Amino acid sequence: MRATTIHAPGDIRFEEVPDPVIKAPTDAIVKVVAGCICGSDLWPYRGENPVKAGSTIGHECVGIVEEVGSEVSSTKVGDFVIVPFCHCDNTCAHCRAGMQSACVNVGITQSGQGEYARVTQADGSLVATDGVPDAGLIPSLLALTDVMATGWHAAVAAGVRPGSTAVVVGDGAVGLSGVLAAAQMGAERVIAMSRHEPRQEIARAFGATDVVAERGEEGEALIAEMTDGIGADAVLECVGTDASMKTAFAVARPGSTVGFVGVPHGVELPVRRMFSHNVGLAGGMAPVRKYLPDLLDRVLSGAIDPGRVFDLTLPMAESAEGYRAMDERRAIKVLLQP
Amino acid sequence: MRATTIHAPGDIRFEEVPDPVIKAPTDAIVKVVAGCICGSDLWPYRGENPVKAGSTIGHECVGIVEEVGSEVSSTKVGDFVIVPFCHCDNTCAHCRAGMQSACVNVGITQSGQGEYARVTQADGSLVATDGVPDAGLIPSLLALTDVMATGWHAAVAAGVRPGSTAVVVGDGAVGLSGVLAAAQMGAERVIAMSRHEPRQEIARAFGATDVVAERGEEGEALIAEMTDGIGADAVLECVGTDASMKTAFAVARPGSTVGFVGVPHGVELPVRRMFSHNVGLAGGMAPVRKYLPDLLDRVLSGAIDPGRVFDLTLPMAESAEGYRAMDERRAIKVLLQP
Repeated sequence: MRATTIHAPGDIRFEEVPDPVIKAPTDAIVKVVAGCICGSDLWPYRGENPVKAGSTIGHECVGIVEEVGSEVSSTKVGDFVIVPFCHCDNTCAHCRAGMQSACVNVGITQSGQGEYARVTQADGSLVATDGVPDAGLIPSLLALTDVMATGWHAAVAAGVRPGSTAVVVGDGAVGLSGVLAAAQMGAERVIAMSRHEPRQEIARAFGATDVVAERGEEGEALIAEMTDGIGADAVLECVGTDASMKTAFAVARPGSTVGFVGVPHGVELPVRRMFSHNVGLAGGMAPVRKYLPDLLDRVLSGAIDPGRVFDLTLPMAESAEGYRAMDERRAIKVLLQP
Repeated sequence: MRATTIHAPGDIRFEEVPDPVIKAPTDAIVKVVAGCICGSDLWPYRGENPVKAGSTIGHECVGIVEEVGSEVSSTKVGDFVIVPFCHCDNTCAHCRAGMQSACVNVGITQSGQGEYARVTQADGSLVATDGVPDAGLIPSLLALTDVMATGWHAAVAAGVRPGSTAVVVGDGAVGLSGVLAAAQMGAERVIAMSRHEPRQEIARAFGATDVVAERGEEGEALIAEMTDGIGADAVLECVGTDASMKTAFAVARPGSTVGFVGVPHGVELPVRRMFSHNVGLAGGMAPVRKYLPDLLDRVLSGAIDPGRVFDLTLPMAESAEGYRAMDERRAIKVLLQP
């Protein structure tokens, strides 16, 4: 098959690679209908994570089940499925506790920007739709495989409650999804920190009541003012840098929690401030599978339209251009079609 | 009056200092019936916190109200009162949200190891008992001013639930109080990490179902085994060092929270592990006032006896010996009588 690969920082190719095959009886092979590029794919692209030359890249996709292992029973060939980026058996102690991203049999989609992808623990991982969905729904279903579920996890971890004030740090696709999640959870005020006009627009469409374009101390001071010096009831940290984390803690009210979902890079947590202000930190890799049934219902009912984060669609063969567009912030998130 | 002062690391004196006086109409002066030494007093004693030479030390006491400011209405001269170490107005936004230790008018008891102490925000801070309690109750009431409420806060922050497994890291007075708190909150299994026989004994009396004497990786491996490789549902970090924090995160199951109440010293939080394991951190300086009414009921009903953490009682004039005894771990916690 052909798939997107990375050879070195900045060196993305779409080329022939071995077809993924059933390796365990619990595996399934999915023919990709749509894949996409994740903000976290930019870490190796920018050389901030190590790169294994020639490896496939991409962990988000939806598609049609092409083949299943002998022990797969709840999914069948021909099903249209949403593939959570982290696979899970959905039966182990961690899964039962709702932490599927810590499943003892956890796996990650490896070629979501390719023509086919292998899914481990297919029965536990895959969620099938009734029939093949309309093309118009594909972006939103694709968003559920990672970005929307990750924004949702940030809001859950931050403890967003009806009537509360939530701040979302980060206006990438995850941050925007976090805005949507906080609004869905009933936050009365959702303050999106964003200085990019097109992202501000999506944030407002997703339910942001306020937008703060300022960053750092200036942005923090504004939010302090907006919250009468009290701070936010819940903060979603959706970037993963030290600066964004510092801002998150600076705007959180005492007793609140920063929900974080951006893979931390160079973050030094302000433990003394956390202690003196009683501000907690919770989150991590999202247990996508836990949230999928509920999020799928919300998409199908039209309550949410998380696919709006895709502002550029390219043929998979042009995935390198997709990376460039995201790296240069010309695109929020890129959808790839085989 | 005479009070305990610190002049330099290791240099504790009991000497004449100016009497505390009403400075604001919301102040009260309390004649100390019993004070005590806190684990956190050992930080300056050991030179790990800066020392202001000649300043009074000690933030825990109970006593009789001696004088009140003109605006104090809910407490009167002659009342026996429990003095939360952090004072609060109990009316500001942070107090109303249950985070009294972040009160906009927060204050700290300054001469709890002296004959008199000034309490700011007396109406919001002080909790009076009906009449003067029996002498036998004094240690447990004194424990409520900080250590028991702090252990309780650790358990609340860690999210201890009925039927859960809790691990308590640290066998100081706060750790032991944390054991008591976790047991009171219905934890089915409370694993106390302690290698000191007398402390193990109190831990068991307080409700520990298991004691792990091993530290570091050895202790962590044992707890992994005891929890079938899953980890604890809630972890109370009651020390504040980097090693204890590392152990806390190592034994916490994915999706759980480490509740921390030990003032962090040299702690570097393992943010990558927190992310990959979805283990949160919450806690800080305990909002003592919030917990006082409930804890007082538990003491008066005989449900808890937190005063057991005091294993040495000295005249206040011998406070220097009390510090030595705690520093050398000859005593868990020292009660001082004027």
